[in-house]
Amino acid sequence: AARIFEIMRQCEVSVILISQASSEHSLCLAIANKSVNAAINALNTNLKFEIENGQINKVTADTGCAILAAVGDGMVGSPGVAGKFFETLAKANINIRAIAQGASERNISAVINSKDINKALQAAHSGFYLSDQVISVGLIGPGGIGSTFLDQVEEARAAIKAKYHVDICVRGIMNSKQMLLSDDALSGNWRDNFANHSIEPDMDTFTAHLQSGDVPHAVIIDCTASTALSKQYLSFFNQGFNVITPNKHANAGDIEYHNQIKATARKNGNHYLYEATVCAGLPVINTLQDLIKTGDEIITIEGVVSGTLSFIFNELGKGRIFSDIVKDAKELGYTEPDPREDLSGQDVARKLVCLSREIGYNVSLSDISVTNLVPEELRNCSIEEFMTRLPQFDDRIMGMANEAAAKGEKLTYAGKIHADGTVSVAIQSVAQSHPLARLNGTDNIIIFQTKRYDATRPMIIQGPGAGAAVTAAGIFADLLRLTSYLY
Amino acid sequence: AARIFEIMRQCEVSVILISQASSEHSLCLAIANKSVNAAINALNTNLKFEIENGQINKVTADTGCAILAAVGDGMVGSPGVAGKFFETLAKANINIRAIAQGASERNISAVINSKDINKALQAAHSGFYLSDQVISVGLIGPGGIGSTFLDQVEEARAAIKAKYHVDICVRGIMNSKQMLLSDDALSGNWRDNFANHSIEPDMDTFTAHLQSGDVPHAVIIDCTASTALSKQYLSFFNQGFNVITPNKHANAGDIEYHNQIKATARKNGNHYLYEATVCAGLPVINTLQDLIKTGDEIITIEGVVSGTLSFIFNELGKGRIFSDIVKDAKELGYTEPDPREDLSGQDVARKLVCLSREIGYNVSLSDISVTNLVPEELRNCSIEEFMTRLPQFDDRIMGMANEAAAKGEKLTYAGKIHADGTVSVAIQSVAQSHPLARLNGTDNIIIFQTKRYDATRPMIIQGPGAGAAVTAAGIFADLLRLTSYLY
Repeated sequence: AARIFEIMRQCEVSVILISQASSEHSLCLAIANKSVNAAINALNTNLKFEIENGQINKVTADTGCAILAAVGDGMVGSPGVAGKFFETLAKANINIRAIAQGASERNISAVINSKDINKALQAAHSGFYLSDQVISVGLIGPGGIGSTFLDQVEEARAAIKAKYHVDICVRGIMNSKQMLLSDDALSGNWRDNFANHSIEPDMDTFTAHLQSGDVPHAVIIDCTASTALSKQYLSFFNQGFNVITPNKHANAGDIEYHNQIKATARKNGNHYLYEATVCAGLPVINTLQDLIKTGDEIITIEGVVSGTLSFIFNELGKGRIFSDIVKDAKELGYTEPDPREDLSGQDVARKLVCLSREIGYNVSLSDISVTNLVPEELRNCSIEEFMTRLPQFDDRIMGMANEAAAKGEKLTYAGKIHADGTVSVAIQSVAQSHPLARLNGTDNIIIFQTKRYDATRPMIIQGPGAGAAVTAAGIFADLLRLTSYLY
Repeated sequence: AARIFEIMRQCEVSVILISQASSEHSLCLAIANKSVNAAINALNTNLKFEIENGQINKVTADTGCAILAAVGDGMVGSPGVAGKFFETLAKANINIRAIAQGASERNISAVINSKDINKALQAAHSGFYLSDQVISVGLIGPGGIGSTFLDQVEEARAAIKAKYHVDICVRGIMNSKQMLLSDDALSGNWRDNFANHSIEPDMDTFTAHLQSGDVPHAVIIDCTASTALSKQYLSFFNQGFNVITPNKHANAGDIEYHNQIKATARKNGNHYLYEATVCAGLPVINTLQDLIKTGDEIITIEGVVSGTLSFIFNELGKGRIFSDIVKDAKELGYTEPDPREDLSGQDVARKLVCLSREIGYNVSLSDISVTNLVPEELRNCSIEEFMTRLPQFDDRIMGMANEAAAKGEKLTYAGKIHADGTVSVAIQSVAQSHPLARLNGTDNIIIFQTKRYDATRPMIIQGPGAGAAVTAAGIFADLLRLTSYLY
């Protein structure tokens, strides 16, 4: 080592940083770019003998480096500083080439690639609260739920910045026709900007943009109901994104893929949050995860998890005619444009698949027995024909409803995960005192029966399980959970 | 620098680690303890001139140091390694004296105090999953809830270790009479050990033990209902502990103290979790926090939050006599030994204070109007006299109950946070269709009415809000949340 420093001194190269890790047979010097050639030449010339006989392996220079230093008297004896410094750099995915901290503890220096310097500075500032902790958000699907989410974030953003030092920075919005990218946070006027300043949608450009500009963390929020987009989560996780979504397809679809994305997210240290997939903003998924992790045993889960079908059966309980109610529900906007999508029960079944898999059952949609409320004769006709002919088929369901009423009971369309792991989605007649019978309007309800919350005292969560505001709030709560994991 | 290395070479001192941070006017060398005197003498002698004319300030030696190194070819180009390494050391409160990482990126070395070496090694191993991430748990109050919690942890511990690499290590159990300390996790036979191997209780010894033995994180779980213990949380946070509790006193007591412990925990980066203070394991506090953080506005919160009073009023709704029900409830163990503690409504009022403060209201117990169900004449007599004379006072409440029944309504004992921030705890007569009227047994219910969950569609959480198993599960869920924040 002495020889090397003597050589540096002779060729008048100022050494900025020196580092030799304990067991390492190499010595690292940081010097100014302009001195690199002089230093290399001097070392190669003066150490010619040692290099030739193999005592020194080689002399190399890595250019394009920068030094990021944390400096301050307050760092002396503060265990957290080095940790916080390198933690923030690590979480921002910045590679550290060399490190030095002298024993005075007033300076920690990290040699990093020049291209990372802004990102590193930003991350380090965030870590030490010199600036806010930024999360870059890309939203796909600014429809009813997505646009409400954007409005909620806009409204709460300043308060969250002030209180939690987290800056939620929406930097991209995309739908199937266009996308809007922004370096800064898209604010209140995102609608105008999206309408007037969007460009052709392109996923690669979108994801690259979200991770550009020195932002340490990025999340993609999928507010679509698209199966195709759910197939891209794996790629998102492999690019280092976190994913938040109310889209059920990844969790209710192919089970291999479902397991793969969860494993990939875990392996990469990314987060996959999906509270809003079941019952919107009601705390269903998180509560279920807590029960399971604390060692409770789930015996059964049953519930009404479709707002549309809740409405239809609540009206049926008032003595109204099935086809009339379906017509009303369609007009009130409670159903999909084709009400058969709701009446088929497939949406309910998908939610039950999500819950079952959360418990650990290997259940797929095809394993579930689902009562389809669409008469077989009307499954393939046009929407108009369906609506026109539906009254011809009222008898069957009205017969059931009247029978229930005669017994003082009420019909419900409920999903249930049974104690043996089988799952059913069917019409049930329940006593008026049963929790399933007490719903109003489009309310959802979930009843957890577990070892600790037994049949006589189950845990019940009830409330609106659909609607833009509450679904968006569920996504937003996931986003805040994400930031508390990241920072 | 060259001179220094030349001197080291001459006195044959092998330099283990070299570090000079970028802007720092000092050079740090790590050498073996046995060479310290030789090196210091050689430097002082050879650099006499530079020292005398002030070019070199001084030559000092810090002894009692150790070097912790992370070594591996896989570290090349992996941004996370340095971060993870220093993050785990920081979280374990280990001070780093000097750092070096050579440019080959195969070795990161940290100079730390010798006394920290085991703790640092343990933390680093945990950080890299070589061993599990350990959390040291001290439980105060192994009564009904506390002992159930210990049993639940014991039962789930292996699964949590396997799945999440977190080792929940209960290392201390204390009550007012004795305490049991252990270096390893107290396992299934903790009851025997606590009975037979306990020592005199002493808080300083207890807390020192929990943080001893190289365990990077520690949490104190207060399962008592003690006001005195709640006054020690501030000291716990100042000692670096996290705190989890179902004990309401810190949150419902003096508001200055309540604000102070929350601020201290936040400032120190510790966590204070208390889901089980209201409605045991039901997800009330976390749900409320999510609503608030996502910018929802809480309009009202109302609910039945006492299992004892829920039982009494549910039985009253069946036409039974008040004093008979109180007698039954006492015999069933649903009440405190002195049932007046439940009937006074103070416990309900405390829970409402906790919820109000969570919303941000500066409410104290004395601000709340509380209907005391104990007749004034019986407030100061013995328990026996109270139980004997209670039937003499049945008329008033039975009159109310009969009046409610005549209108098809039901009496409930409910707490309510009103839209203007006032809080009341009172007997309410509600329609049978009202959510408050549908309780069974000792069930609790909380009804959140917010901007997003409006009056016609509130969010309702219902289920057992007391009992050892569900309260312990609420504490356990908090503990797992804590580990996900820490690691």
